[in-house]
Amino acid sequence: MRRQVVAADEQRITITAIAREAGVSVPTVSRVVNGRADVAPETRQRVEDLLRRHGYRRRIGRTRDRADLIDLVFNDLDSPWAVEIIRGVEDVAHTSGAGTVVSAIHRRTSSTRQWLQNLRARASDGVILVTSVLDPPVQAELRRLDVHLVVIDPAGVPSFDVPTIGATNWAGGLAATEHLISLGHRRIGFVAGPRRLLCSRARLDGYRAGLEAAGIEVDDSLIQPGDFYHESGFTSGTALLELPDPPTAVFASSDQMAFGVYEAVRRKGLRVPDDISVVGFDDLPEARWASPPLTTVRQPLAEMGMLAARTVLRLARGEEVESPRVELATELVVRDSTTRAGQ
Amino acid sequence: MRRQVVAADEQRITITAIAREAGVSVPTVSRVVNGRADVAPETRQRVEDLLRRHGYRRRIGRTRDRADLIDLVFNDLDSPWAVEIIRGVEDVAHTSGAGTVVSAIHRRTSSTRQWLQNLRARASDGVILVTSVLDPPVQAELRRLDVHLVVIDPAGVPSFDVPTIGATNWAGGLAATEHLISLGHRRIGFVAGPRRLLCSRARLDGYRAGLEAAGIEVDDSLIQPGDFYHESGFTSGTALLELPDPPTAVFASSDQMAFGVYEAVRRKGLRVPDDISVVGFDDLPEARWASPPLTTVRQPLAEMGMLAARTVLRLARGEEVESPRVELATELVVRDSTTRAGQ
Repeated sequence: MRRQVVAADEQRITITAIAREAGVSVPTVSRVVNGRADVAPETRQRVEDLLRRHGYRRRIGRTRDRADLIDLVFNDLDSPWAVEIIRGVEDVAHTSGAGTVVSAIHRRTSSTRQWLQNLRARASDGVILVTSVLDPPVQAELRRLDVHLVVIDPAGVPSFDVPTIGATNWAGGLAATEHLISLGHRRIGFVAGPRRLLCSRARLDGYRAGLEAAGIEVDDSLIQPGDFYHESGFTSGTALLELPDPPTAVFASSDQMAFGVYEAVRRKGLRVPDDISVVGFDDLPEARWASPPLTTVRQPLAEMGMLAARTVLRLARGEEVESPRVELATELVVRDSTTRAGQ
Repeated sequence: MRRQVVAADEQRITITAIAREAGVSVPTVSRVVNGRADVAPETRQRVEDLLRRHGYRRRIGRTRDRADLIDLVFNDLDSPWAVEIIRGVEDVAHTSGAGTVVSAIHRRTSSTRQWLQNLRARASDGVILVTSVLDPPVQAELRRLDVHLVVIDPAGVPSFDVPTIGATNWAGGLAATEHLISLGHRRIGFVAGPRRLLCSRARLDGYRAGLEAAGIEVDDSLIQPGDFYHESGFTSGTALLELPDPPTAVFASSDQMAFGVYEAVRRKGLRVPDDISVVGFDDLPEARWASPPLTTVRQPLAEMGMLAARTVLRLARGEEVESPRVELATELVVRDSTTRAGQ
């Protein structure tokens, strides 16, 4: 069944539907709606005809009698890196006089409905979603809401056709592995992220590429499962330490899992980095406070938030974005959890 | 110099000023403005006369053509516990259909002006400030803005007369100290918070009270300075370990400082808790991920956020609050960083 052009609960045509019918992009329709000059005359004519035919009405409350709002939406507000992204978005929003409405989808169905209702009532200028998984019904609702949408996706490539912002996961996995190899490590354990996320796969592939480039054969017993959370780092770290021929270093593909590996090492009466080197991925503030401070791959979360805010504000002004997906560079941050092999 | 009744830049009387002149509370004036029945007739008459005389106008944009907004404001968005408070506020706001606008004052003067301007333009239903220090000019501006204000104050008692929400710092300091004494520790180090904050003093007094109740003399050399941040925990932890007669346990009055003590212990080639027990204060998510997991005093930050949101929504409905200050209970959470003395 195809999506209907007229949203049933609103009896109101959306910019997205007009764009589809006119065969042009959503920003182009926005520009026509906002009376901007930079649209080809025949395109403008086609879009205006459709707007008139469908009785398109400008959104109530979008006039300048109130400040702009950007909605920043998380699946849940329990991710340790949420505040990093909030800081980046708020910084850019603040400068342009916009407010940042932070909310969580809460994942319960009733709650999602409430959330969408609130979103509609607020008439935001744009929505930044921080997520890697979005239920198809929510996706469909968001399309119907006719808001400018940008997805920050620390986890992988999402399945819907809106601008997304990510980080270079593969390059980060490679850099972490190369760092350990440069310290003389040959047996390097890996704690993976959730299989369903592309970022997990990208980090693993970076790890494999680093080993192979150094002529080190990939030993599958050194690759352990994980879900990015602390407990799985502890479990997989323990499993690695109990191998007949344990690794001298572990690359955990999230900081939380790296802290779990720390705890596995401690419980065995061993020490980081003297007995085993550990590298994480994320560079949460906690990485600096860990004991020893954690060597890790930095994801520029605040910068991703800033870029998302700039992108959504540009979309709201009817401008085009250069690329549907942008990945910001990750960076290895060397601290005290890694040392030369055999030290 | 007394505050003027008419705000100069707005030429508009505020509810606060009316309340002062009428000799009633701000919520009472709110109730009259909102046409509620539960106001004594003579009070209503007096307030209405004043409203008329001063030409009070209801705020534009406050009608129900848009969803409610609560502003949640931090000094800076770098505090590790910010996301805990955001989660609590958002949870309550979400349920009542309100959006949570998160922002930071950013402390720069130009930025503060911009922030106040954004706040005014948004016409929020209420503002929750998370702060222990607020510049007098910002205080004055906020009063003039005539918004419902609640302060979450994890740090102490603020200097202005609005409802504030805190935690029982003294009781928390006592509980941490009693826990260590119950494990047989007699020489217990203390890393203090910033002197200017009352919460620092309350935690220190709880520590002293615990020692004195157990008949242990307070040794001032065991009390070291700190500012709640990691580095000061490291410095003071190192100083404690280098005493001629070092403590067998340290109570750091923030989790971040406790992690700094961990690092001081590690650098000395010692171990937590085998060589020294450590207790923190806050119970950030990181406390669970530390190695060993940190015994700490939990501040109910999410609950403080929930209560603040409920309070500001009640004020917005013109209801009274029971008490100008509410403190929620702290709670000792025992994990693996503490053990019996002499183990």
